[in-house]
Amino acid sequence: MNVSFFATPYRHAAGSPIRALFPYMSRPGMISFAGGMPDPALFDRDGLQRAHEKAWSNPSACLQYGPTDGLPSLRAALAAVMRSRGVACDDGDIMVTAGSQQGLDLLLRVMVDPGDVILVEQPAYPATLQAIRLAQGRIIPVAVDADGLDVDALSEQLACWDDRLSEPKALYTVPTFSNPSGLTMSRARRVALLELAVKHRLLLIEDDPYSGLRFAGEAQPSLLALAQDVPGARDLIVHFSSLSKILAPGMRVGWMLAPAEIMRRCSIARQTVDLCGPGWMQAVAAAYLEGDTFAAHLPNIIASYRAKCDALANGLSESLGEQLTFARPQGGMFLWGRFAQGIDAAVVLKAAIEHGVMFVPGEAFYASNADASAVRLSFATPTLEQIGEGTKRLAQAVSSVAD
Amino acid sequence: MNVSFFATPYRHAAGSPIRALFPYMSRPGMISFAGGMPDPALFDRDGLQRAHEKAWSNPSACLQYGPTDGLPSLRAALAAVMRSRGVACDDGDIMVTAGSQQGLDLLLRVMVDPGDVILVEQPAYPATLQAIRLAQGRIIPVAVDADGLDVDALSEQLACWDDRLSEPKALYTVPTFSNPSGLTMSRARRVALLELAVKHRLLLIEDDPYSGLRFAGEAQPSLLALAQDVPGARDLIVHFSSLSKILAPGMRVGWMLAPAEIMRRCSIARQTVDLCGPGWMQAVAAAYLEGDTFAAHLPNIIASYRAKCDALANGLSESLGEQLTFARPQGGMFLWGRFAQGIDAAVVLKAAIEHGVMFVPGEAFYASNADASAVRLSFATPTLEQIGEGTKRLAQAVSSVAD
Repeated sequence: MNVSFFATPYRHAAGSPIRALFPYMSRPGMISFAGGMPDPALFDRDGLQRAHEKAWSNPSACLQYGPTDGLPSLRAALAAVMRSRGVACDDGDIMVTAGSQQGLDLLLRVMVDPGDVILVEQPAYPATLQAIRLAQGRIIPVAVDADGLDVDALSEQLACWDDRLSEPKALYTVPTFSNPSGLTMSRARRVALLELAVKHRLLLIEDDPYSGLRFAGEAQPSLLALAQDVPGARDLIVHFSSLSKILAPGMRVGWMLAPAEIMRRCSIARQTVDLCGPGWMQAVAAAYLEGDTFAAHLPNIIASYRAKCDALANGLSESLGEQLTFARPQGGMFLWGRFAQGIDAAVVLKAAIEHGVMFVPGEAFYASNADASAVRLSFATPTLEQIGEGTKRLAQAVSSVAD
Repeated sequence: MNVSFFATPYRHAAGSPIRALFPYMSRPGMISFAGGMPDPALFDRDGLQRAHEKAWSNPSACLQYGPTDGLPSLRAALAAVMRSRGVACDDGDIMVTAGSQQGLDLLLRVMVDPGDVILVEQPAYPATLQAIRLAQGRIIPVAVDADGLDVDALSEQLACWDDRLSEPKALYTVPTFSNPSGLTMSRARRVALLELAVKHRLLLIEDDPYSGLRFAGEAQPSLLALAQDVPGARDLIVHFSSLSKILAPGMRVGWMLAPAEIMRRCSIARQTVDLCGPGWMQAVAAAYLEGDTFAAHLPNIIASYRAKCDALANGLSESLGEQLTFARPQGGMFLWGRFAQGIDAAVVLKAAIEHGVMFVPGEAFYASNADASAVRLSFATPTLEQIGEGTKRLAQAVSSVAD
């Protein structure tokens, strides 16, 4: 195949920069802060086995084609999850997706024509940046500070919009325990963002896979929940969430809520994408959520991630001191840091791999103007012991390149 | 949202014409020849339960994120399936997909720019037509006769190609037990098609979900298998298959083989589509295929479909006689017929629903110039008794509109 055979965005497309690190992660003895994978020791195997037994009592529901928008039992269970998170909704408002990634993909399909502008918080989740690029959308970054997305900066961006660009169609953000920054938007910022969205008729894409993993600080309502108090805002929010981080990614169960006209088109898109999700996994997820296991088990995950995050933050402070500055996350799976001036994260990574430790250099998370000093460290997968050892190895790697 | 908010192909998109019939199918007492769903009574529940027990002995493989291209154990098992079908291949040649539909979707993504021409056999599977339309491809139909795709007609089409159209990028066909026609391409036709593809450097998209369901006649090698004997052909074939029709659609396990440059880009696309498939389902599918249950159970499905196809064909001949002409399929799930002149299938359907029987009018299967007399009848889902009764009801419905 000649390269011109392919669709424009795929002619010279490269894969995920994080997935490209996977082969190194499986080296014997490697300690990885790189992946965004949940700790397998925290999977609720017993609870899931019981849920499976319950689901399997009706094999036909597991094995037959199912509805495009998801099994009714799972839509009901997920609507209950959303209500427990302060969102008024019915079963019919939920579309089950293959992780929240599929929700984003469906949305971009139905929404983005080549050249359409999507605002994205920066730094941002690389698969979001890549999905927008492959949809031939144009990414315009929005700055983030310690309180999350900088709404004042956004307001100014929108007020002085460059006339050579088309109006932005949407803004993508992970407002709670963002990937990669680990940061969370304050409530005041959230309200300001909703008001700004109403003023500019800007669609907000709220990606919310981590909010269930809060281990410190005060809970913040989702943009979707808060939108109920801001007139006109509820119709401007697409909300994605997922069981991947709070139950198990291997089930590929996520969900979305969106204005009806968007939802209807996403459902039409889904009919040509994969017809429907796996009924078997959906039935297990529904059975799991219907029981009391979920509420009982989630605190175990949270307690473990709290301890791991503390271990990572303390270890980094002790081993690296002034060489790395970072903010302590209040939940989620990620810690974001910046090396001191003159230390390039990509250079450190090379040395770190030789020292048996890995992380993701910040560059992967920028659409443009990458910060070469930035790093993302995940504390979710390694054990406490590995975290302690890993921070020491990281310090050795930094020393080796700073020499 | 204003309609102009949406991407061009989704502004006025309508959903699947077959899925639109689903609400009627669940009416009490309805006998449906409409859906393409396997008979749930034929699901190998015991075999799948054992496979699940085996897969669950390694819960982490079930529950963690997995490789984009599929679990290694499943790729190995599916490569063995392909080798048993006469295709020389390795594990690495297989990409696991969410049904064969996802394979098609990934391929269209990486291949189709707006306006690109895709040749499609006519009549064709509606989700293929819709997927190409939503990718903004241009569908040019290729005729089909009793021996399947009419390769002579195609040869002429290609020789006298309309200069106002861009060169066709690919041809889509279901060469064995096609949906909807039920027809199978002869071996001579297959060889001629491969030679034609080589001559015109035309990519062949072979969708092959049904070939495992042969209950009469002589087995035909897939285009992919035959391509090994036609110099230059193997690099021009994308092959999709699926466990949906021979095991269970609710697992959403399909797979594809394609030239390396296509495969690589499909894998990149997949990273933004859903990251990876459900490991749990993949592990169960691998465990199932590794055992001897598959070979033992498949003949049960085939025997049942043979009996059902006979019952449908005989019932139609007895009840409708000259009012419906059709060819007897040698496998698969579908029978394609044409009402006698003056009988419109869509009109019959309305009456049929009132009489408690359903089918899909042929119109859904045409990109253009639909044959209003055509019907697709699936014999897979209803019981033998329902098939007998259903053909009588259908005859009553035809009488009621012919009056």
